[in-house]
Amino acid sequence: MAKKYVYFFGNKKADGKGDMKDLLGGKGAGLAEMTRLGIPVPPGFTITTEACNAFFKAGKKHPAGMWKQVENEMKKVEKEMGMKFGDPKNPLLVSVRSGAKFSMPGMMDTVLNLGLNDVTLEALINKTNNKRFGYDAYRRFITMFANIVMGVDRMKFENTLEAMKEEKGVANDTDLTAEDLEKLCDQYKKIYKKELKKDFPQNPYEQLKMAINAVFGSWFGERAYKYRTLNGISHDLGTACNVQTMVFGNMGKTSGTGVAFTRNPSTGEKKFFGEFLLNAQGEDVVAGIRTPVPVSRLQKKLPKCYDQLVKIYKKLEKHYRDMLDIEFTIQEGTLYMLQTRVGKRTASAALKIAVDMVKEKLIDKKTAVQRIDPAQLDQLLHPTIDPKAKVEKIAKGLPASPGAAVGTVIFTADEAETAAEKNEKVILVRTETSPDDIGGMYAAQGILTARGGMTSHAAVVARGMGKCCVAGCGAISIDEEKKIFTVGDLTVKEGDYITLNGTTGDVVLGEAKLIKPKLTGNFDQVMTWVDQYSKLGVRANADTPHDAKVALGFGAVGIGLCRTEHMFFEESRIKAVREMILSNSIEGRQKALKKLLPMQKGDFIGILKEMKGLPVTIRLLDPPLHEFLPHTDEDLKALSKSMGVPEDKLRAKNASLHEFNPMLGHRGCRLGVTYPEIYEMQARAIMEAACELTKKKIKVIPEIMIPLVGHVNELKQMREVVERVAKETIAKYKTKVNYTIGTMIELPRAAITADEIAPFADFYSFGTNDLTQTTYGLSRDDAGTFLPSYVEKGILEDDPFVTIDQKGVGALVKMAIEKGRSVKKRMKMGICGEHGGEARSVMFCHQIGLNYVSCSPYRIPIAKLAAAQANLAEAGGRDLSKSTV
Amino acid sequence: MAKKYVYFFGNKKADGKGDMKDLLGGKGAGLAEMTRLGIPVPPGFTITTEACNAFFKAGKKHPAGMWKQVENEMKKVEKEMGMKFGDPKNPLLVSVRSGAKFSMPGMMDTVLNLGLNDVTLEALINKTNNKRFGYDAYRRFITMFANIVMGVDRMKFENTLEAMKEEKGVANDTDLTAEDLEKLCDQYKKIYKKELKKDFPQNPYEQLKMAINAVFGSWFGERAYKYRTLNGISHDLGTACNVQTMVFGNMGKTSGTGVAFTRNPSTGEKKFFGEFLLNAQGEDVVAGIRTPVPVSRLQKKLPKCYDQLVKIYKKLEKHYRDMLDIEFTIQEGTLYMLQTRVGKRTASAALKIAVDMVKEKLIDKKTAVQRIDPAQLDQLLHPTIDPKAKVEKIAKGLPASPGAAVGTVIFTADEAETAAEKNEKVILVRTETSPDDIGGMYAAQGILTARGGMTSHAAVVARGMGKCCVAGCGAISIDEEKKIFTVGDLTVKEGDYITLNGTTGDVVLGEAKLIKPKLTGNFDQVMTWVDQYSKLGVRANADTPHDAKVALGFGAVGIGLCRTEHMFFEESRIKAVREMILSNSIEGRQKALKKLLPMQKGDFIGILKEMKGLPVTIRLLDPPLHEFLPHTDEDLKALSKSMGVPEDKLRAKNASLHEFNPMLGHRGCRLGVTYPEIYEMQARAIMEAACELTKKKIKVIPEIMIPLVGHVNELKQMREVVERVAKETIAKYKTKVNYTIGTMIELPRAAITADEIAPFADFYSFGTNDLTQTTYGLSRDDAGTFLPSYVEKGILEDDPFVTIDQKGVGALVKMAIEKGRSVKKRMKMGICGEHGGEARSVMFCHQIGLNYVSCSPYRIPIAKLAAAQANLAEAGGRDLSKSTV
Repeated sequence: MAKKYVYFFGNKKADGKGDMKDLLGGKGAGLAEMTRLGIPVPPGFTITTEACNAFFKAGKKHPAGMWKQVENEMKKVEKEMGMKFGDPKNPLLVSVRSGAKFSMPGMMDTVLNLGLNDVTLEALINKTNNKRFGYDAYRRFITMFANIVMGVDRMKFENTLEAMKEEKGVANDTDLTAEDLEKLCDQYKKIYKKELKKDFPQNPYEQLKMAINAVFGSWFGERAYKYRTLNGISHDLGTACNVQTMVFGNMGKTSGTGVAFTRNPSTGEKKFFGEFLLNAQGEDVVAGIRTPVPVSRLQKKLPKCYDQLVKIYKKLEKHYRDMLDIEFTIQEGTLYMLQTRVGKRTASAALKIAVDMVKEKLIDKKTAVQRIDPAQLDQLLHPTIDPKAKVEKIAKGLPASPGAAVGTVIFTADEAETAAEKNEKVILVRTETSPDDIGGMYAAQGILTARGGMTSHAAVVARGMGKCCVAGCGAISIDEEKKIFTVGDLTVKEGDYITLNGTTGDVVLGEAKLIKPKLTGNFDQVMTWVDQYSKLGVRANADTPHDAKVALGFGAVGIGLCRTEHMFFEESRIKAVREMILSNSIEGRQKALKKLLPMQKGDFIGILKEMKGLPVTIRLLDPPLHEFLPHTDEDLKALSKSMGVPEDKLRAKNASLHEFNPMLGHRGCRLGVTYPEIYEMQARAIMEAACELTKKKIKVIPEIMIPLVGHVNELKQMREVVERVAKETIAKYKTKVNYTIGTMIELPRAAITADEIAPFADFYSFGTNDLTQTTYGLSRDDAGTFLPSYVEKGILEDDPFVTIDQKGVGALVKMAIEKGRSVKKRMKMGICGEHGGEARSVMFCHQIGLNYVSCSPYRIPIAKLAAAQANLAEAGGRDLSKSTV
Repeated sequence: MAKKYVYFFGNKKADGKGDMKDLLGGKGAGLAEMTRLGIPVPPGFTITTEACNAFFKAGKKHPAGMWKQVENEMKKVEKEMGMKFGDPKNPLLVSVRSGAKFSMPGMMDTVLNLGLNDVTLEALINKTNNKRFGYDAYRRFITMFANIVMGVDRMKFENTLEAMKEEKGVANDTDLTAEDLEKLCDQYKKIYKKELKKDFPQNPYEQLKMAINAVFGSWFGERAYKYRTLNGISHDLGTACNVQTMVFGNMGKTSGTGVAFTRNPSTGEKKFFGEFLLNAQGEDVVAGIRTPVPVSRLQKKLPKCYDQLVKIYKKLEKHYRDMLDIEFTIQEGTLYMLQTRVGKRTASAALKIAVDMVKEKLIDKKTAVQRIDPAQLDQLLHPTIDPKAKVEKIAKGLPASPGAAVGTVIFTADEAETAAEKNEKVILVRTETSPDDIGGMYAAQGILTARGGMTSHAAVVARGMGKCCVAGCGAISIDEEKKIFTVGDLTVKEGDYITLNGTTGDVVLGEAKLIKPKLTGNFDQVMTWVDQYSKLGVRANADTPHDAKVALGFGAVGIGLCRTEHMFFEESRIKAVREMILSNSIEGRQKALKKLLPMQKGDFIGILKEMKGLPVTIRLLDPPLHEFLPHTDEDLKALSKSMGVPEDKLRAKNASLHEFNPMLGHRGCRLGVTYPEIYEMQARAIMEAACELTKKKIKVIPEIMIPLVGHVNELKQMREVVERVAKETIAKYKTKVNYTIGTMIELPRAAITADEIAPFADFYSFGTNDLTQTTYGLSRDDAGTFLPSYVEKGILEDDPFVTIDQKGVGALVKMAIEKGRSVKKRMKMGICGEHGGEARSVMFCHQIGLNYVSCSPYRIPIAKLAAAQANLAEAGGRDLSKSTV
């Protein structure tokens, strides 16, 4: 016996079920489930995804037995309806629709009225006693079939229709008479013949076969294929094909069609929400000729139908236990349901619906937590541009830091600071930002750069500040001297208003209306549940007591990355830093370091105090030294004076620090190895801060982290330096401090030799930004010129700097975890790259057994939610107690 | 019973053997073996390396039973000699020496005359009837014991000796009388007491114990430890300690001491070679007071001893089947052998000795091949500075390309070319070189750069040319405008002579005498044998027909890396290349590419023809485009004219191609993905060349290589482009060509996902230069500032750009081989990084199962020899037939 390829549904019975989405697609499964629930659904059948896959495997031929099954099921439908497909008296008409597991653009749309031909048309007219209705249905069918099944340009038909309307002097299709439409049908058939060199098919089964093949064929249509590639959906799934009895919403005043949500998809409010049109087909709604009205009005127009619809939606929601999106048609006072699926919703609606449904006991808390899309939470944490606002987009960059910002354009960081002091709202526009710009970035509402990627300086710093940023906007060309930037022919001057959308990357001219984020009680409620179900700890990347405070507010369980170099950029300090760098002797460096020690110590006191006994991972100096160097002649002159070193010498030293590939240069622990006195000073500052706080009975857990280790001996030597200083300091203060010394794993070699390194590390923190750069051999600052086209051309599914590359970078992280723990079984390991705040990456981190992720404070809720979902998915609902990290 | 820690030797019997170097050290094993052979060796015993290791394990305490064994074996020695250790009448004196498996600097030296004290001294005087001899022996012993065993500064004793000589008005030690020396001994004992706060030990067994402990202790002395770290010798080996009866070469005219080689270590000539001194101890030879004379003269002076010595050396050489280095002492007409070991030799001596010994049937061919140090072969392939020449070294850089060169200093490539046309010999001195300099590099005798590492542009290109280069010489400071460079206070002007030693990195002022390399018949003979025993193929990195010819001369079996971009730098082409890069449209690029196509085709015809049917791996364009851009304003102006594009626009485009980290930027196949037309042109040029030659009945095997693949989809898309062009071209020419398409594995991600990539690659070529850079996160061009100090501080054992980092980079290569072959079992894989010409790396390549290595032509012999040795070592002598690659 042949495999079952066709599943019938009709009259409260269905071969399929709601959980058979893999086989029947989302639409087919929904139709089967509704039928089983006794909800009125026009009978029909679904041809399975397996049939589709077999079709391609056989070189676009139906698998054996499929067509026979189609014919058999069609007979059942005929019986159910008391009509016959292609019958010259009482013809059954059907719709044909694709329906895959995931809905996706580019798949074949709907063909309505299939089964019509010159003969059945007459029967339809006789039966409905409505010639106009009959010819209208026929001309629509010819158009859809020719266009959707056969690929003829729709405009060929539209133009003919327009010509007819002009000839008749009417404005609307509905003004055309039955005779007009009859004539149109003739013209349409001629167009069909001209375009396809054959007659419009009159055999309904031939029509059906062609339509089914077209549905299958659309699975490998260009757009669908690209969409799947980009969204990581397997090409092996295949699509199902739904063939269903036609019902008509356009048969008069007691007919109609509509779509609705069981709750409000924008707000989550528990109120039936939707719209409908009387005497119309779905097509007409889309065409936008008539404006649909709220579904509540149906109560007055067709009260019986409305009551029935309300009962049905309630039944469905209760059955599916989720907010649903439904489609219905009323034919001469009889209600039919045509589709049901889980409805899309905004973040705040998702939160409200989840919390409400828990209250209503429809779902439990775990389900509620799993219902919310972590990536969507961003909407709640940042201002957004009012979706109703009309905006003039002038350019698009990378969505580097989410949210929206409005302000006047300013081109230098200093001016941004001055403006901020006057309470002016500005947008800082730079070719690229450097650490010198941090003050200005902080002062600005948002940042726009012409160069740099998702993890460029501007992007990283902005995300850390929770500030909107559009980066790498190559279309803008900045002339700092003239204080303008240009986009094509448009010139934007200093002081002009622009608006940034950091969530999409859009740059908008003028002052768009922003909506402020509101964190509701629902958010807090869901976050409480999230905490109950997480195993992975969520820490923050924070460099200042202020950042630490924000992080605590979002429920961080520690700081996973405190970058000490960010403390070096303050104006009062940068001079000492420069003196240190430009000294040619160890004495000179030590003198400068002595000035820095109390300042760094103050920083650490601030952060450790704020974190009240939670662990704080402090990374020792990491970036190449030339990042700190004077960039302008003035700075150089000033420095020359204060250091008493001739300008020439300073300039030469400056030049000698130039590197071809600073990312791969003299940085990280390489600085510590060549200038141990720098790490010594930092270790002393940390330990003195820790000791002083301990003496004041404030609990502290400093975790000192050595960056960019590639060889175990680097860590070994640096650990010796730090350990010596720590012991000296503890002895000096006569106290006890729980400190640990660990390392970043951010180079492939460190991951590969993680078992060799482990004996000298108390913890590992994966720096996945740099690890991605080195594993891919890809500079984050330079990738902007070609990475977008990589994603476009389908070479990469995702930007590896946004979501962790599981097969490459992820494999190295996994290897390092295994190797490290083969030596130290319970070694604490976390991740502190940008990926720590991205949902899919967080889930991956959970799966491979990390103890924590660390991300910028504003991404903590996202990370926490993703962590909880990963744990729930893994545990299959079991409650795992939260680990302490 | 306690473990055996002490091994006796004496009177033709020995507990040990010659192959017990692990346990007895090299010296101890040699003494035991000579004793067994019946060769006269003063009796003694060796304390094992196991005892040394146990000593450290127990916290510097002798292992149980060791001391008892020492006492027992001492009794055997006493019996053998008929003397007693510490006996007041007939005292036995001994020497104490360390002796590890490998000889190494920093280990404890020799202590002679141990057993002397105030009492035994008298006995020695009485016995020899020579007071002067006695006191001389005593004062030497006190000095050595205090200095070597107790660590007292030797100068304390030397100064006292000098004072005595001054007081007595004599010039030489030998002029001091017995009474003088007696007084000196008193003074020495006082110094000892003052420095060490205790008396000079009078108990001979106490002296012995202290000396043994000092030998053991020296194993972890700073210098020895560092030496082992740097040379990759395990710290677990431990040292043995040899205690041996003293014999005296300074007991008159029938006494003496000497060292000799069984053959000439410089030339390999089969002639006894060495020198000796009558009436002297080893110390005196070292002190350089008297000049030793050739060993042949001993025949006249002490004919009986000489004859005996000749017999012994012949016996030893026959026994060891190798050229040996021996030490002997003659005491009053009796010959004693004190040491034998395999003798060090020059490369040409090594070849001659190996070939001669095969002829003499002393060894077989396989042994001959294994006897030659591959790294040493470099000596034979390049000129060297005459070792006898006195040179003034002014600076030291990296030994970037071996050999030596003399010439006058010149600072620009253009001037170097002009000078070469006038037959002037010049050294090109540049801060760093760029592809623009290639003509000048070719014209110069040698290249000196101030910046860049072992794989910087200058280093790579120079090695490819077989030209001497010293790179990254940070001590020199170049002023191109003034046409000078300075080193400290020294100024070297254009036109001044300098000499470079590319093998050591030395920069020498003036014109040093060079020795030209000579490749003898022995070299050819050994190379023939090498070919019989290799499994790994050796290919060349060659970009021109000339390079290809050189490579064939050295026996390359193909070209493993032909860099197409090197063809772009010729003056006639660079303009077209620049037009291509600076075009903003695909049409503009295609126009420029059309100009390049016939030129590239010509290149490929030349190389493929030269290689006569051997495989040629051609890498498509790899470096970032801005490497080709105009560097000077003149160039830019000229280009602006010829392209008809305003200078401003060109300058802007130029600037827009700037990259922060070009190494990680828009290069390799990323260029091919964004500008497929470039790879298309190159593929067409290769295939047209291949087709035309095939039509002329010339066999060709082009292997087209896609560089810098990180994700399988990059290769997939590029393969499609190349395959399409190849098929089109083959169809056009109506012929057949055996071509393959493969990829470089030079990014960690490619190695990690080598199983995913394999289906789209016919071969893998490991680009270990770039793989090292990315795995370590280390830019070869920037590492010069800190990598040397890494090796110095013992963090890295070797520069990973010189010898492959087996634990990191090597592990990735291994992983990629396994993953690739898990998909394609017999996939051809090779290496084309600089490591392909370095002996240890080549051996590693053999071990992990690569099919071939590819290196610059002048390193082919080294690679071939290393490959044969690796194979012989693995096969344990079995003859493995050579694989075809």
